[in-house]
Amino acid sequence: MTSVSNPASLQAIAQTTRRAAQTLATLSSQQKNDAIEAIAQALGRHADAITEANAADCEAALADGIAKPLYGRLKLDNGKLAEAIAGVRHVGTLPDPVGQLQIHRELDAGLVLKRVSCPLGVVGVIFESRPDAVMQISSLAIKSGNGVILKGGREAVRSCRAIVTAIKDGLATTAVPPEAVELLTTREETLEMLTLEQEIDLIIPRGSNAFVRFVQDNTAIPVLGHAEGICHLYLDAAASPDQAIAIAVDAKVGYPSACNAIETLLIHQDIAPELLPRLAEALRGRGVELRGDAAAQRLVALSAATEQDWSTEYSDLVLAIRVVPSLEAAVGHINHYGSRHTEAIVTEDDDAAQAFLSRVNAAGVFRNCSTRFSDGFRYGFGAEVGISTQTMPPRGPVGLEGLVTYRYEVVGDGHIVASYSGAAAKVFTHRDLL
Amino acid sequence: MTSVSNPASLQAIAQTTRRAAQTLATLSSQQKNDAIEAIAQALGRHADAITEANAADCEAALADGIAKPLYGRLKLDNGKLAEAIAGVRHVGTLPDPVGQLQIHRELDAGLVLKRVSCPLGVVGVIFESRPDAVMQISSLAIKSGNGVILKGGREAVRSCRAIVTAIKDGLATTAVPPEAVELLTTREETLEMLTLEQEIDLIIPRGSNAFVRFVQDNTAIPVLGHAEGICHLYLDAAASPDQAIAIAVDAKVGYPSACNAIETLLIHQDIAPELLPRLAEALRGRGVELRGDAAAQRLVALSAATEQDWSTEYSDLVLAIRVVPSLEAAVGHINHYGSRHTEAIVTEDDDAAQAFLSRVNAAGVFRNCSTRFSDGFRYGFGAEVGISTQTMPPRGPVGLEGLVTYRYEVVGDGHIVASYSGAAAKVFTHRDLL
Repeated sequence: MTSVSNPASLQAIAQTTRRAAQTLATLSSQQKNDAIEAIAQALGRHADAITEANAADCEAALADGIAKPLYGRLKLDNGKLAEAIAGVRHVGTLPDPVGQLQIHRELDAGLVLKRVSCPLGVVGVIFESRPDAVMQISSLAIKSGNGVILKGGREAVRSCRAIVTAIKDGLATTAVPPEAVELLTTREETLEMLTLEQEIDLIIPRGSNAFVRFVQDNTAIPVLGHAEGICHLYLDAAASPDQAIAIAVDAKVGYPSACNAIETLLIHQDIAPELLPRLAEALRGRGVELRGDAAAQRLVALSAATEQDWSTEYSDLVLAIRVVPSLEAAVGHINHYGSRHTEAIVTEDDDAAQAFLSRVNAAGVFRNCSTRFSDGFRYGFGAEVGISTQTMPPRGPVGLEGLVTYRYEVVGDGHIVASYSGAAAKVFTHRDLL
Repeated sequence: MTSVSNPASLQAIAQTTRRAAQTLATLSSQQKNDAIEAIAQALGRHADAITEANAADCEAALADGIAKPLYGRLKLDNGKLAEAIAGVRHVGTLPDPVGQLQIHRELDAGLVLKRVSCPLGVVGVIFESRPDAVMQISSLAIKSGNGVILKGGREAVRSCRAIVTAIKDGLATTAVPPEAVELLTTREETLEMLTLEQEIDLIIPRGSNAFVRFVQDNTAIPVLGHAEGICHLYLDAAASPDQAIAIAVDAKVGYPSACNAIETLLIHQDIAPELLPRLAEALRGRGVELRGDAAAQRLVALSAATEQDWSTEYSDLVLAIRVVPSLEAAVGHINHYGSRHTEAIVTEDDDAAQAFLSRVNAAGVFRNCSTRFSDGFRYGFGAEVGISTQTMPPRGPVGLEGLVTYRYEVVGDGHIVASYSGAAAKVFTHRDLL
């Protein structure tokens, strides 16, 4: 909770968090779940202090002329707090991601290899105004055995402080050291945090595309997240028209600022003359502004889409439409302009679906359903730490498994490698025990 | 094989490789294994051309005054070529890492999620003089469904060209496009390659620590590898003296320049007076130069280890020795100075072993065996693309699985997310089908 402004003391805080995390890493599932329950109870006890701190944040933000959506995310009333506490308790019910035996193999008699999942160490999370994120992230960090250093938005500083005070109060009576959860409060600390390669194992930025990109470009620490979500829906020549319309509307209008909402609709030229007018009517009926290429403009009255449109994440009720001559052209467009997040095809043709699913380069490739299903809760992961558009795992919606890694344990009885070479070389058995 | 020197044309090459890789990604295991066999046969047919090209490289390198170990790695006679061809065929026998079903879950009736392993796309490999690496890496890339862009050392350029010519000749009659394997030949291309974030998904640098560090610091592309291997052996108070000596000798002298060889030996103060003199005698008998802290110097005549020694990878027959008062001190030393590669304890005490294995931060944590077992072949992975010391997976020795990622496929029948909210909200079933 100390606010610091020079790297040495931020590094000292991070080292304290790392030591606390080392203890946390060795605790049992029961001990971690008990700590999560203690946090939930402490948040309840501190409810008045938290909502009062939040009211002060909200008042100051209004005086500063905060934008309405930001104000909505900042505000934490008793109802939202109760929901957040329920969310903390839910994390307690999730399976423990630590200690899972992934490989168990005899290398030779008496020499055994295990690959076991283990915590990363310390996770740094930088988020926008939402103070409820502090509760969610802290419980996910503890469940996965990691220390966490949190940096919230300036406008939420009183709320975050009150919440972290409650969390530390809760942890005080448990096996989890309270130092496992730390809060930073200044922008300078964010920049310093990005330099702590030795102390922090993963950075999770939650904020605007520009902010995530800034973090990615300014740290050597691995970053979990995505800068952009430019998702496409391709309506194949063999699409069911009714499914096409229902899915397009769902993928665009339900929550247009979500990263898994579509920005561009691709439609096969054979089906466009019949389908596009109906589709345009349905989308416009839900308030969507349409832009299209020349071929689309010949079928429906809409403004021209420019090259810029194909690589824009509108995060709003705007949709770009392009008529394509073939599935290959659709795949080519997606692999060129897409952000590798989630891409969908609507088709009744199994071969077309297979070609699309195997050739599109994205974390999620969908058939005959909305791109909006690309989400940790909908996938059944219980909780989501973020969605990754990188190629290397963890990729796509990331549950608790994004907060763990693994280590190889080898236990022998005096075994040396010299025994496995030369004239009387022993031979590895490599016998799986799992 | 074209040598280029401006980014636009290197980018064009990489895009061609990416398109070839897109085709390769959809091939069956049989088609990939057939291509690997065709490569093995073509290498046999081109054996004379390859060894002649290598002889020319060797002659030029001798004229340039090449260092002896580098010359040994550069030289490719008929015996080494035959071994390399056998290695290519071995890759054909390994399990296909692509297409493995990792999650199979019904989200709701008719809406099914699969997580399936898939190739990364294009892998960039930068290696030193060893021309046999071209054959090994190309076969691993094809097996894992990836395109590969290779950049060998300048001194091996004729050999690498002859080998890649043979590989492309072999691929010409197979389902794998020959463009899936490309060779770069200039240093400028290495630098350009590091900027191709859109075209290359993973960089594997094989070379000196300084070179790997340079690559890590100069690319936004994920890097698989390790800069340093500072491994420790800790001899606990409850160590078996005979095991301690045998393991220390094995871990130091078998191959001192290996990354999994030890650089520092930590010994508990209770066992040091009895064990250290015997240990010093055994290590010196194998030509090891010893350096030690003040406590070690009181027990054995040896030169003083300085602060610098604790963070030096000697890659040579030199060993630093430190006497520690406790297991905690040993763990503290390792977590401070270690490179998170492989760390070992020798002890008969189960509690001490458990504390060490769970508290040391490294990809490999070993008990009563040599650190030299930290190796993909010894772990039974069949082939190794590298050893990673990063915290995030893939970590430790990496087999073919380091060359694949996964994607989420969701197949529905017109499913939309709007159905799962509101008054008559449907409920996800989240029923695992695996």
